[in-house]
Amino acid sequence: MRLKVKKIHINTGNTLIAVINKEDAKQLDIYSLDRITITCKNKKIIATIDITDSENVVKKGEIGLFEETIDALYCKVNQLVDISLERKPRSVGFILKKLKGERLNKEEIFEIVKDINEGKLSDIELTYFVAAGYIRELSLQETVSLTKAMIASGATLKLNRKIIVDKHCIGGVAGNRTTMIVVPILAAAGLTIPKTSSRSITSAAGTADTVEVLCNVTFSVKDMKKIVEKTNACFAWGGAVNLAPADDKIIKVESPMSLDPVGQLIASILAKKKSVCATHVLIDIPVGRSAKIESRKQANMLKKKFLDIGHELGLKMKVILTDGTQPIGNGIGPALEAKDVIETLKNSPNECRLLRKKSLFVAGLLLEMCGKARIGEGRKLAENILNSGKAYKKFFEIIKAQGGKEVTADEIPIAKNFKDIHTDNKGIVRHVDNKIINKLARLAGAPHDKEAGIYLFVHKGCKVKKGDKLFRIYSDNKERLEFTYQEYKRKDGIVVE
Amino acid sequence: MRLKVKKIHINTGNTLIAVINKEDAKQLDIYSLDRITITCKNKKIIATIDITDSENVVKKGEIGLFEETIDALYCKVNQLVDISLERKPRSVGFILKKLKGERLNKEEIFEIVKDINEGKLSDIELTYFVAAGYIRELSLQETVSLTKAMIASGATLKLNRKIIVDKHCIGGVAGNRTTMIVVPILAAAGLTIPKTSSRSITSAAGTADTVEVLCNVTFSVKDMKKIVEKTNACFAWGGAVNLAPADDKIIKVESPMSLDPVGQLIASILAKKKSVCATHVLIDIPVGRSAKIESRKQANMLKKKFLDIGHELGLKMKVILTDGTQPIGNGIGPALEAKDVIETLKNSPNECRLLRKKSLFVAGLLLEMCGKARIGEGRKLAENILNSGKAYKKFFEIIKAQGGKEVTADEIPIAKNFKDIHTDNKGIVRHVDNKIINKLARLAGAPHDKEAGIYLFVHKGCKVKKGDKLFRIYSDNKERLEFTYQEYKRKDGIVVE
Repeated sequence: MRLKVKKIHINTGNTLIAVINKEDAKQLDIYSLDRITITCKNKKIIATIDITDSENVVKKGEIGLFEETIDALYCKVNQLVDISLERKPRSVGFILKKLKGERLNKEEIFEIVKDINEGKLSDIELTYFVAAGYIRELSLQETVSLTKAMIASGATLKLNRKIIVDKHCIGGVAGNRTTMIVVPILAAAGLTIPKTSSRSITSAAGTADTVEVLCNVTFSVKDMKKIVEKTNACFAWGGAVNLAPADDKIIKVESPMSLDPVGQLIASILAKKKSVCATHVLIDIPVGRSAKIESRKQANMLKKKFLDIGHELGLKMKVILTDGTQPIGNGIGPALEAKDVIETLKNSPNECRLLRKKSLFVAGLLLEMCGKARIGEGRKLAENILNSGKAYKKFFEIIKAQGGKEVTADEIPIAKNFKDIHTDNKGIVRHVDNKIINKLARLAGAPHDKEAGIYLFVHKGCKVKKGDKLFRIYSDNKERLEFTYQEYKRKDGIVVE
Repeated sequence: MRLKVKKIHINTGNTLIAVINKEDAKQLDIYSLDRITITCKNKKIIATIDITDSENVVKKGEIGLFEETIDALYCKVNQLVDISLERKPRSVGFILKKLKGERLNKEEIFEIVKDINEGKLSDIELTYFVAAGYIRELSLQETVSLTKAMIASGATLKLNRKIIVDKHCIGGVAGNRTTMIVVPILAAAGLTIPKTSSRSITSAAGTADTVEVLCNVTFSVKDMKKIVEKTNACFAWGGAVNLAPADDKIIKVESPMSLDPVGQLIASILAKKKSVCATHVLIDIPVGRSAKIESRKQANMLKKKFLDIGHELGLKMKVILTDGTQPIGNGIGPALEAKDVIETLKNSPNECRLLRKKSLFVAGLLLEMCGKARIGEGRKLAENILNSGKAYKKFFEIIKAQGGKEVTADEIPIAKNFKDIHTDNKGIVRHVDNKIINKLARLAGAPHDKEAGIYLFVHKGCKVKKGDKLFRIYSDNKERLEFTYQEYKRKDGIVVE
């Protein structure tokens, strides 16, 4: 059947969509979500069908295509294209197999990931894949295959170094900018650490958001390579470098349910590490009340899986369980966190004690893993590097290579409007809730508004008396500030007893 | 935040969608698939967010709404509307609960079905519900709740009769128009049978498609009531009467995977029976090679669940396993099947033997269930009614009440072009494949082209010699006819040995 191209505008998410009129669909015996091949001269693409019964959308005899699809076909509006029914991709059958509880082999998983990446699977089909992976769970071999398939789906950073270090934190702890201290310590020690980080999804700031206060973080793999070759390290936003892109499409259908199926979580993280050709990887799992992982049992289960799969992938791995019961930094929000990082790197009296402590611990372990320090002596070496100012120097070397300049903490602008929260009783701070503090910082405008956020005057164990300041809310927008302040009253983010 | 309404055109499927620009989404801290409340003066609706990064689709400061949404808000293009972030519906949490393997209670299932019906759940969320129901399976109580929720979601047909009969066939057998013989037999015996039927989804014709050859089948519940009150029966298309509408939305996300989770299948069928207030229900499960249910074990499992759930719903139920190994009628396709039905009702020499046999069996059981015949005597009574011409008379009484008129089989037009398939060897017909015959009839144009289809000259057990005709392909379109003929050569729809 030949149909006339009409341009339509909408976001399609993951899939190539073609819209046809109900009458043509009947004639062709095509149903919603069926696939068709669209041919225009020598170009050919496969798209998923959406059917409309409105002549306003697409008339009988027309086919509605998105701009990208029209470009991909090298065709024009009003041109005639040929369409024919296409079989379902084989990967749909493999997803069904997994739904039924059978194991998938490497070829089947590669095919699924390839089709996800090429937009051949609809959101509904992709959702079945995630649901099956969540309920049926992926076996060790399936997870390894998924990781390899994700690596194959994207770009790879190739560096001519024997040892390449990487680290990853599972997340969930507010103000946890350890990476920004660990990376310059390791790079100053001569290690190579091509770090990619994410932007915040549900927290007040990701590492990428915070580094962006100081310099650019959006690089191609080629640019990233140049920066690492020059400085031994980088802070790149993972979303831009196209490492394991299938992962982002999977995450899109996980988010409505806040699902994080273990197999897919591990595959997603390790694929990104393997894509930068990491050899030594440390995984940090913060555990505790209000963290992402609340129980040690759950954390240990995850740790074992990470180690098993890392081993299969030929990685030298260490997985640590750390204290996730409260925010690490004093500042929560991109600019406030960047200040904490600079003060800490500078060994200033305003340094953030918890951030320093955790960073030295993590950096120490990595120095030991890579043979830069003997077992038990890594922390000391890390401390020497930090205290000597070499880490500070290396940090701004990287920031400059990324287009930024050296600044003091005071030079980083923060929101002009603020409001303090005081305690109503005296006692000891028993709990500082990551989730609530993160939420408040977001309400105040972080991470979009880089200058907004929360500054904590207390951490767990602090003694306070009635009327003491607990924290300050910063926001550029007075309405938001007031709203965040009112919202806090309904919550219990800091417990004093 | 206030945004300016822009009209956008596309089919949304099940959900109300609003499209906003990436910049506004950042500002509002809103993610794809989040919900917002849109307020225009006193009208308020909840929509799911889609985010675009193209200014062509929706600019910063604009909100893209579909025509129906604009109508529902009583607003105009370019008018300003207020938007605010809305919580996820509680039903999303219930779906997550089921994904995790927990049982859902009645209130939770009612809430899910209500939200499905009101378009509050995205396709992705709905897919998780179906996947969870498929893998975790619904318990007896969950299935009962789902059935009741589906009934509550739609219209109900209330008739002032003590006994109301209904039947349902699980499907998968080509040319199975038993309903069109059974209904007039029962109605002629004084029973009330307000039958709703589906159109074909994957077969060459559904009962609704076949009856439509003779008269209208699209009625409101009110019209349906009038027809039943006049004739004791009807043949209505289920899709139009709005009984258990949530079901159609669930089926939409099942179809890409061809899933038919048992719990949802049973709930869907029994909800439609309860919606016409049926008291006595017979379920026909055809079993055998090329039928929907291929093994007796599977059929018996299904039978048990039907009986358990029917019991919980207070239905008098009978579930029968019938021969599903080959097509029932000679004709496959709406017009060809309508001819078979009329010839059989007329007791003509051209009657369809298998159709007559199965119809008398089913009608006999229902007459016994409803006390119109003693046990063991139902079939005889059904045969008397059929032989006496009373069923024929009742059939056209119903057809006339639905706006049709009495016709002979010869008066029903069929496609002018045809092509015969002959056997290459002599022997006995060992297999006639439902799936392949259905597919061929569809290729020829059925059910959209009512005059197209297949006419079988043989059934299982027939002796044939080389060169004998096996079947005839009818199509109004010569290209389709040739294509179907060529396609047959690659298949093995009829096995002669």
